[in-house]
Amino acid sequence: MLKNNLFLKALEGKSVERPPVWMMRQAGRTLPEYRKLREKYDFFTRCQTPELAAEITMQPIRRLKPDAAILFSDILVIPQAMGVEVELQENIGPVLPSPMRSKKDIQQIIIPDIRERLGYVLEAIKITKELLENEIPLIGFAGSPWTVFCYMVEGKGSKTFSKAKALCFSEPEVAHQLLQKITDTTIAYLKEKVKAGADVLQIFDSWGGLLSPADYQEFSWKYIHQIVEAVAEWAPVIVYGKGTWFALEKMSKSKVSGLGIDWTCTPELARKLTGGRVALQGNFDPSQLFAPLADIKRKVHKMIEEFGPDNYIVNLGHGILPNVPVDHAQAFVDAVKSYKK
Amino acid sequence: MLKNNLFLKALEGKSVERPPVWMMRQAGRTLPEYRKLREKYDFFTRCQTPELAAEITMQPIRRLKPDAAILFSDILVIPQAMGVEVELQENIGPVLPSPMRSKKDIQQIIIPDIRERLGYVLEAIKITKELLENEIPLIGFAGSPWTVFCYMVEGKGSKTFSKAKALCFSEPEVAHQLLQKITDTTIAYLKEKVKAGADVLQIFDSWGGLLSPADYQEFSWKYIHQIVEAVAEWAPVIVYGKGTWFALEKMSKSKVSGLGIDWTCTPELARKLTGGRVALQGNFDPSQLFAPLADIKRKVHKMIEEFGPDNYIVNLGHGILPNVPVDHAQAFVDAVKSYKK
Repeated sequence: MLKNNLFLKALEGKSVERPPVWMMRQAGRTLPEYRKLREKYDFFTRCQTPELAAEITMQPIRRLKPDAAILFSDILVIPQAMGVEVELQENIGPVLPSPMRSKKDIQQIIIPDIRERLGYVLEAIKITKELLENEIPLIGFAGSPWTVFCYMVEGKGSKTFSKAKALCFSEPEVAHQLLQKITDTTIAYLKEKVKAGADVLQIFDSWGGLLSPADYQEFSWKYIHQIVEAVAEWAPVIVYGKGTWFALEKMSKSKVSGLGIDWTCTPELARKLTGGRVALQGNFDPSQLFAPLADIKRKVHKMIEEFGPDNYIVNLGHGILPNVPVDHAQAFVDAVKSYKK
Repeated sequence: MLKNNLFLKALEGKSVERPPVWMMRQAGRTLPEYRKLREKYDFFTRCQTPELAAEITMQPIRRLKPDAAILFSDILVIPQAMGVEVELQENIGPVLPSPMRSKKDIQQIIIPDIRERLGYVLEAIKITKELLENEIPLIGFAGSPWTVFCYMVEGKGSKTFSKAKALCFSEPEVAHQLLQKITDTTIAYLKEKVKAGADVLQIFDSWGGLLSPADYQEFSWKYIHQIVEAVAEWAPVIVYGKGTWFALEKMSKSKVSGLGIDWTCTPELARKLTGGRVALQGNFDPSQLFAPLADIKRKVHKMIEEFGPDNYIVNLGHGILPNVPVDHAQAFVDAVKSYKK
């Protein structure tokens, strides 16, 4: 039994004395103790060494004391496990030297054995669970098939992911083949994560908002929905889509327990679209963490009032930015803890 | 009098036999005749030499035959005129080697004499108007103060423009000083453009969607609104905001004649929010131009049906992508011309 189960209670829709809080990307990036490890080990060494991944997961827990931990990892471990080379260039981002562009490329892609290819993630979960000593729950995550597809086809980060989208619109059946392979892999991966000890699952659809509402249903939600259907009985699932406010109503009618909201969608609209069917998580603009400490506190309290304190998980609207001062990140967590219903 | 006044009629809300069509960024990028000029002249030479800017403006008119021309230029001629160095690195984008970060930086910024510093734009308009021989109208454009501010503070393109946003949230009064200076310059600039011959004005707010709805009002719309109030009696104004669907209702109650819509907002929602008060322009996903030619035609006709053919200007939902095949761009324009009410 967890000592602090605020996060799980919020996901179950139970009343809480205050909403739980965590921050997307809380593990890594911002903390000086992380930067020290970064000097010694490259990105995928940090991901693939279970002790290091567990240590990085624990760093923000010790310092900032949020109500949930999220395993330090990367959404691109999935294409790696599928046999695609992925490099992570510090301060630039992911580069896939041989992106998928044709039917032939995609036919060669394998659906991997998760324990064999991603055992290091499962091991990191086990170590982290021991380190957490049942204090707070652990979140395991994966990218949405669409977002992973974007990188696999484009070969790198992009403002428009126009090569990935061009494949969808010029050869949709080929695109769907790859999306299905990513989906099948992700379902197996998330189930193994739960078996290894993850308490909650989150799916990140960072590039969903690049699609029109109709294309989003066809190329993104269709596959996220398959995942949610397959794993919802294993653990509560949160789906976070950046810029996908237009799909919230439909998403809220699925088996998800929670939906992540970004700051371009007001709490009022998010509640209206989701009709109390799910917990909501978000939506503080990560750049607002550069505001003076007193402003952060005031704005966090205002946000809690706007969402309402139940059925709600305080979070940012996207990942924490690398150059946020640590005391500002701390102020965000502390503001939630000082909130009185 | 213009021989083809479909574009102006749509902006005035008059009934048309078919909607007019043009494409954001139609001048430059995609056309082989543009690429030839690019080999000979660097970006700002192309902008600052009136004969070259006029020639580039005319290239898509001769080849694709849209219903409006838009002057080839760049939103960053404004910071240049304000005394800020701007470089444009081919295939990378704009770089401002000395970005504005402090009160002192911003106090040094001048509001320029437009004719003196931007005379080359006005001259390019005059030449273009002669070349157009009253066939179709000419659009003059500027960036929104917020979008120009993003580059002036960040110093380069960015996915998050977090330095620009950090200035807004940490020192709002300093941010507002710079936004006001950009606004004053832009108003004077757009008035001179109309005097030189521009028939319609468009304001591009490419980065408005990075802000929350409340912050958008404070840091972007407030200044666009000043511009619209100042120039609406000089020429019809279209405001295009990327990702700013949340502000459409308020925008539609201003003196704008048209609002640009991106593909994440459905025609139905855009019409609902704007209540028939203004013409709408958009919203074809630029990546959809990679679809087979028959699909482009079908999707364009569907889009016209969804917006309704009156009070409507067919366009992309953002700028045309550089690698779109010319026959696909042509298919977009031709699809509109083949539309029958």
